[in-house]
Amino acid sequence: MSKSLPKRSENYSEWYNELVKRADLAENSAVRGCMVIKPYGYAIWEKMQRALDDMFKETGHENAYFPLFVPKSLFEAEEKNAEGFAKECAIVTHYRLKNDPDKPGKLIVDSEAKLEEELIVRPTSEAIIWSTYKNWIQSYRDLPLLINQWANVVRWEMRTRLFLRTTEFLWQEGHTAHATKEEAVEETEKMLEVYATFAEEFMAVPVVRGIKSANERFAGAEETYCIEAMMQDGRALQAGTSHFLGQNFAKAFDVKFLNKENKLDYVWGTSWGVSTRLMGALIMAHSDDEGLVLPPKLAPIQVVIIPIFKGEEQLAQISELINPLVKELKMSGISVKFDVSDKQSPGFKFAQYELKGVPLRLAIGARDLGNGTVEIARRDTKEKATYSMDSVVDTIKNLLEDIQTNIYQRALNFRTTHTFKADTWEEFLKIIESEELGFISAHWDGTPATEEKIKELTKATIRCIPLDSVEEEGTCILTGEPSEKRVIFAKAY
Amino acid sequence: MSKSLPKRSENYSEWYNELVKRADLAENSAVRGCMVIKPYGYAIWEKMQRALDDMFKETGHENAYFPLFVPKSLFEAEEKNAEGFAKECAIVTHYRLKNDPDKPGKLIVDSEAKLEEELIVRPTSEAIIWSTYKNWIQSYRDLPLLINQWANVVRWEMRTRLFLRTTEFLWQEGHTAHATKEEAVEETEKMLEVYATFAEEFMAVPVVRGIKSANERFAGAEETYCIEAMMQDGRALQAGTSHFLGQNFAKAFDVKFLNKENKLDYVWGTSWGVSTRLMGALIMAHSDDEGLVLPPKLAPIQVVIIPIFKGEEQLAQISELINPLVKELKMSGISVKFDVSDKQSPGFKFAQYELKGVPLRLAIGARDLGNGTVEIARRDTKEKATYSMDSVVDTIKNLLEDIQTNIYQRALNFRTTHTFKADTWEEFLKIIESEELGFISAHWDGTPATEEKIKELTKATIRCIPLDSVEEEGTCILTGEPSEKRVIFAKAY
Repeated sequence: MSKSLPKRSENYSEWYNELVKRADLAENSAVRGCMVIKPYGYAIWEKMQRALDDMFKETGHENAYFPLFVPKSLFEAEEKNAEGFAKECAIVTHYRLKNDPDKPGKLIVDSEAKLEEELIVRPTSEAIIWSTYKNWIQSYRDLPLLINQWANVVRWEMRTRLFLRTTEFLWQEGHTAHATKEEAVEETEKMLEVYATFAEEFMAVPVVRGIKSANERFAGAEETYCIEAMMQDGRALQAGTSHFLGQNFAKAFDVKFLNKENKLDYVWGTSWGVSTRLMGALIMAHSDDEGLVLPPKLAPIQVVIIPIFKGEEQLAQISELINPLVKELKMSGISVKFDVSDKQSPGFKFAQYELKGVPLRLAIGARDLGNGTVEIARRDTKEKATYSMDSVVDTIKNLLEDIQTNIYQRALNFRTTHTFKADTWEEFLKIIESEELGFISAHWDGTPATEEKIKELTKATIRCIPLDSVEEEGTCILTGEPSEKRVIFAKAY
Repeated sequence: MSKSLPKRSENYSEWYNELVKRADLAENSAVRGCMVIKPYGYAIWEKMQRALDDMFKETGHENAYFPLFVPKSLFEAEEKNAEGFAKECAIVTHYRLKNDPDKPGKLIVDSEAKLEEELIVRPTSEAIIWSTYKNWIQSYRDLPLLINQWANVVRWEMRTRLFLRTTEFLWQEGHTAHATKEEAVEETEKMLEVYATFAEEFMAVPVVRGIKSANERFAGAEETYCIEAMMQDGRALQAGTSHFLGQNFAKAFDVKFLNKENKLDYVWGTSWGVSTRLMGALIMAHSDDEGLVLPPKLAPIQVVIIPIFKGEEQLAQISELINPLVKELKMSGISVKFDVSDKQSPGFKFAQYELKGVPLRLAIGARDLGNGTVEIARRDTKEKATYSMDSVVDTIKNLLEDIQTNIYQRALNFRTTHTFKADTWEEFLKIIESEELGFISAHWDGTPATEEKIKELTKATIRCIPLDSVEEEGTCILTGEPSEKRVIFAKAY
């Protein structure tokens, strides 16, 4: 709190890193690339989990838990998937330490406790789960199987950043099995829509729903659907993916079922996940140079009440008025904190709760007591106004709803003004090299080679082929080859 | 469902193993010693988590998340703790796989990707957490620090059993830091009481609150408090532990704070945890030869309604009556399933829901429709009776409460009749060698050597020194040395 945050306009990246630390969301740990999620950050993640979990259950899914470790022989069974993750795996090779004979009090790996088969710390769980599904599925009556798990996964990333890319992260991964291709595709699309709804209605972050190009597809999938969000620096952030796996994992793990015609067939699969990366998206989409801006639906504290008082007696008078209000707000399901501490000045507290993104701040002093009023400040617009205490609960409810809508609208406006069309390579370059980054809607010839070339030249990648993109005759911005659809290019996190 | 469960009286151990599998709670996985927690088992665990998490928050704790891995140098810092876990650690030594040059499509560990320092997969998190607390704590103003995490941990167990002892398990671990010894001891005791309340009020399992002898103390703790439950075979199961860590971890990780007198002092610590082992306790405490018996407060389905019908028309008539009831029960927070499937006979369904421990089963047929009645069967006593539909919601509520109380009382009666006093070695041997095992309350001279000797001779260990044990002059059952208190001996899981 001693010095202010770096400004977004000056160093967006430093602003993000500092904000994550100063708002007590997360910090780097003693373990390379792994983070500690601090209580305030974890409280936001818990709210995300709760909302997502409810949505998964409403759509018929159940939670389960599968092992952390994947034996190497299972890991390598689906070759594309294995190849995609092989270079970033933490590998358990031993199961015991022993005393170091040369250094008293120190431990070394016991070479006699070497595993016959190495265990991979799961980077994703398709392998272990499909090897289990083999025993669970015999007939079409066992399908669909709609399972989700909340878990930690490990991917050995070389460059890490809090929430955005960490060696260990928390996520949920859905793994479903179906009797038909149509049903599996429908599930893939349904879960993408669940993610999009969550992003827009809870996180207040508008997203583009789309399909990944082959280059960006999940290793082992037939098709990867995604939602892409725009951050305030104009970069894209992939916020969730839903994969249609075809029969790839069923074939790799020999998962067959008797269909209604009494014939054996391979099962169709999907998998879908979102992770603590969403925290990064949430932070970067709304926050400002004073700190976090949180959507009310995910804010651990929605309302903070700060008494402005001199001495015990004034505090007692204020408390007499505020305690019933606190109770009433809690009864309405609004999370509220009445900060009566006298260790910090009101001004210090104001700044602190601003940093932490609390959506509404009520300040009440001696004069308000006489007038029957209270001052309410909105975190999103920083507007302050005086309201009557008589109807303050309704005022608070309305303001919270308004903030939720407003920050969504603001993010949507930002995205709209930062989405550009490019019809020539020159236009494309002009946008991608300008300071104001954004999404570029442009034609592409559909080849991985062209995508790769554009990435090499500009660092921009195809974020997705939007689900709502319209058929339109055009020519590829790089090669001039014919194209029927625009895709979204952007620099990405 | 094809054949019945083994009987408890004939093979308690097999009965447990089969019950866990047939009731779809968990199964062994492809990974040695690791289990898959199946959706029905996980649903019970989720209910446990929710109840415990609420209790932790009510007592002022916050959740956070710390890394899965512990660098070896941190792991070995607190020597006793390290020594206690060194022999059962999974160790990550490499971070990359590569293609096997000799076997196309296969992978091998890339020897060039060897870690400079090995990472231990956490068997418990004191080391990683106290190394973090060092940076969080400077002054008494930063204390107390009251943090919990829900996580997976790994202990390389040689003999594993579903839920009771698995290589990977799920748990919560609280880690708190305090300015004074008194406050830390108070926290240790408070959390033990939270566990005891949870066990008794939610799991309906009575527990003895006590302190472990030095032999059974957590490695690195000054004192370990525990709750001990009795299973239906008379064996003890340790259901939760709460450790007073003294300043041991603060000293190992150099965590000092400026106290109110402005002097530097080491911080006082506690840690406490319960795990998926509680699932084993829940299953073994109440279930019978027909299957699970679940306490209503933790049952994923509290009420199942089974229509007995011929043809669509009868089902429609029953549904017309039952659908509003289902709605009303859900509104009252009661989880209910109306099983209208016609693929299985009512009798088959009855047996299935019995196996799964659903507390109440409603059966309704054509005759009931005319009479305005419904048959309700209790899972705990297997009593069936016919009730009026008019007041059926109240009936259900009362019955659920009654079942919760009844199974607690039944378990308590069992424990009472299986708790014996032994005043001589002969009496002790007679009890411990009989078929009817139980808790033995006996005098002990307080030495680890005697405890060890008794364990060698009888396999019984000291489960705890009960908190409520009274001062009483006596002599040790083995050595005849003087003793002031009775302790609880038992054979344990």
